[in-house]
Amino acid sequence: MPDRENTFMPPGEALGAEIMARAEAAAVHNEASEGITRRFATPGHRAVSDLVLGWMREAGMTAWVDDAGNTVGRYEGTSPGLPALYIGSHQDTVRSGGKYDGMLGVITPISCVKALHENGERLPFAIEVFAFGDEEGVRYGTSFVGSAAVAGNFDADCLMRLDDDGISMNQAMRDFGLDPAKIPAIARKAEDVLAYVELHIEQGPVLEAEGLPVGIVTSIVGGTRLSVAISGVAGHAGTVPMVRRHDALTAASEAVLAIERRCSVQDGLVGTVGRLAVVPDAINVIPGVVRFTIDIRAPENAVRDAAVADVRAEIKALCARRGVNLDLDQANQSDASVCTPWIMDQIEGAVAGEGIAPRRLYSGAGHDAQAFDGLTDIGMLFVRCKDGISHNPAEAITAADAGTAARVMLRFIRGLEAP
Amino acid sequence: MPDRENTFMPPGEALGAEIMARAEAAAVHNEASEGITRRFATPGHRAVSDLVLGWMREAGMTAWVDDAGNTVGRYEGTSPGLPALYIGSHQDTVRSGGKYDGMLGVITPISCVKALHENGERLPFAIEVFAFGDEEGVRYGTSFVGSAAVAGNFDADCLMRLDDDGISMNQAMRDFGLDPAKIPAIARKAEDVLAYVELHIEQGPVLEAEGLPVGIVTSIVGGTRLSVAISGVAGHAGTVPMVRRHDALTAASEAVLAIERRCSVQDGLVGTVGRLAVVPDAINVIPGVVRFTIDIRAPENAVRDAAVADVRAEIKALCARRGVNLDLDQANQSDASVCTPWIMDQIEGAVAGEGIAPRRLYSGAGHDAQAFDGLTDIGMLFVRCKDGISHNPAEAITAADAGTAARVMLRFIRGLEAP
Repeated sequence: MPDRENTFMPPGEALGAEIMARAEAAAVHNEASEGITRRFATPGHRAVSDLVLGWMREAGMTAWVDDAGNTVGRYEGTSPGLPALYIGSHQDTVRSGGKYDGMLGVITPISCVKALHENGERLPFAIEVFAFGDEEGVRYGTSFVGSAAVAGNFDADCLMRLDDDGISMNQAMRDFGLDPAKIPAIARKAEDVLAYVELHIEQGPVLEAEGLPVGIVTSIVGGTRLSVAISGVAGHAGTVPMVRRHDALTAASEAVLAIERRCSVQDGLVGTVGRLAVVPDAINVIPGVVRFTIDIRAPENAVRDAAVADVRAEIKALCARRGVNLDLDQANQSDASVCTPWIMDQIEGAVAGEGIAPRRLYSGAGHDAQAFDGLTDIGMLFVRCKDGISHNPAEAITAADAGTAARVMLRFIRGLEAP
Repeated sequence: MPDRENTFMPPGEALGAEIMARAEAAAVHNEASEGITRRFATPGHRAVSDLVLGWMREAGMTAWVDDAGNTVGRYEGTSPGLPALYIGSHQDTVRSGGKYDGMLGVITPISCVKALHENGERLPFAIEVFAFGDEEGVRYGTSFVGSAAVAGNFDADCLMRLDDDGISMNQAMRDFGLDPAKIPAIARKAEDVLAYVELHIEQGPVLEAEGLPVGIVTSIVGGTRLSVAISGVAGHAGTVPMVRRHDALTAASEAVLAIERRCSVQDGLVGTVGRLAVVPDAINVIPGVVRFTIDIRAPENAVRDAAVADVRAEIKALCARRGVNLDLDQANQSDASVCTPWIMDQIEGAVAGEGIAPRRLYSGAGHDAQAFDGLTDIGMLFVRCKDGISHNPAEAITAADAGTAARVMLRFIRGLEAP
């Protein structure tokens, strides 16, 4: 291990207290009455970005907002301009989400850099910390917009998408003070980056069940998202006999149950209908149109692809049987991303260095790390969360686990040796 | 038959053309981009009310808007203040509805009165025509608010209900220039009314299938409306294994299919889930709460009650099995209303007088006539509509049928003899 490991390690209590206080401070910036809703390029995004810029600067970093709406801080190494270790996560949330999904992975590395800075340490590489502007894609139905822009695989077609108020992403970004035409210029080159690592709450029950504060991620599941519209015939709820109906909602309900059934046959495979809207949505009118989304994930691409194919076929068949029209589009697809062995090994070393049994586990959720798969080597550290709950106002972690995770990350940073 | 029957009968073509033109004129006043949406106490309601007031006055009626938001016109008989034949229907629509549901039954009797007026005829009774302000209840989830107020069974609790913008019905009525405190004063007495009759599109396929322009209604089905909330546990669509989920939408989907199945076993029985909303409604979040409505109807109360009881029990059981919480309220219930034999007979006489084979049929839809059941004798005339479609922008009738229906109604009015 390099000599620089044997430097001052802040106590977990202090780190945990700082991280928890900052998570609370960020959670104030919220559009929702229940839980946290913070969408891309909104006043909440601006407020959190300002908060993060302040923390980054206090930690000795130069900090800015890039043209994709990411907040970025850079801590130089022993000499300016060295290749950097990237550490990041996202500032945005799902609707009515929690305080830690995303933000914990922004706040923790800033505390690590702050510890280095306060200790006067410079490493033989730079560190860049990212708070990606748009990961969840709540506003525009996208995925990983911020990290994709940094990793050089931003899809400019996204800019034409409209939010629920009819505002294009292009317009929203301009209103936020960004220049979408300059997004290609923020893409990084492989030679500028040593690796990308991300700290995130587990969002699942494994670590809690095994009494472990942190775990080492082996791979991130791949996912397919479909957008479905079923069109039947609207009609009067009292006068159209059941046998003559072409009810879009009963057809959609059958589809929802078919997805649940097909995705329940195999461990690791999951399928969810998260959004569903009925038109015209009146008590006494047979639904004419139902639009819904499908999200299917598995740790292996082949398992996911087989489930998607079966679900498509089942929905097609039931719509034909019910005499309703089906419009089924694939919104996007991400392949499973495998974490890089040398990074997993060095994270494992840092975990063990904190006296914790190393546990490797896969991620059922998608993460910004996927956007960097291909550009650079990737790795992730998971932090235990209460009852495995996330994307929910009840999302919770302990200050002790936050402190432990920060110490593991600081240890990993100090010990980092790219092969 | 009374002598007054042998007076000038306007040609069906002229009546039909006037009625169709007026239905188009009313349809302009609309909140929606597709079909007609005209809710209670909105600018569209005001505009149509002004239109109707003008038509009523042109037809020789005194006309006003009452404190429940109904537009009312009165045509005196041979002497002022005689008991009146009431003829009415509603001005409001469902979401994305058509041009004829409700409005045809407002416009047609005005054309009949206009014919009497132009012919200088006074009958031994008055005629009052009503355009009820709120029948569909789209804005406040109510039923028959306008007709119930006139019939003396207005439920003042409605006034506290809120619309989607948080505006109470009380406030909306005040903003519309009404005084809700005076609603009890518009209730009519049994001695003031001879009978209540209503003309309405069939909203079903029977008359079209049999090649008949009009039919005589025998009864109006009773209906039960339920409001359901299923609460599960929101969670991450990628990390919560299928076996650990408490998905509110898969539970609701099972309920939707249970309702469809149970209500398909018996002719005349129908069950519909018309509204359904998902919380938090995000692609990558397992639905935590789903709220939906149930509307179950049958021509016999016992059949309806048995279906409601079974549906309640099935939903309760599936929620228990899935570990989700169920909150199920009965929003309202209306019993089946039987039309009065002497009115059916006299409508039948008018139908036959126009050379049309009399066809009696029940109504699968609810109507304002139900509000008058108890106060006075009731009857209804149905008009054929295209493909049985209603509550849909494609709702259509022919000018010829409108003219025929107006002639039947005029013949009925002239020949009316209360027992």
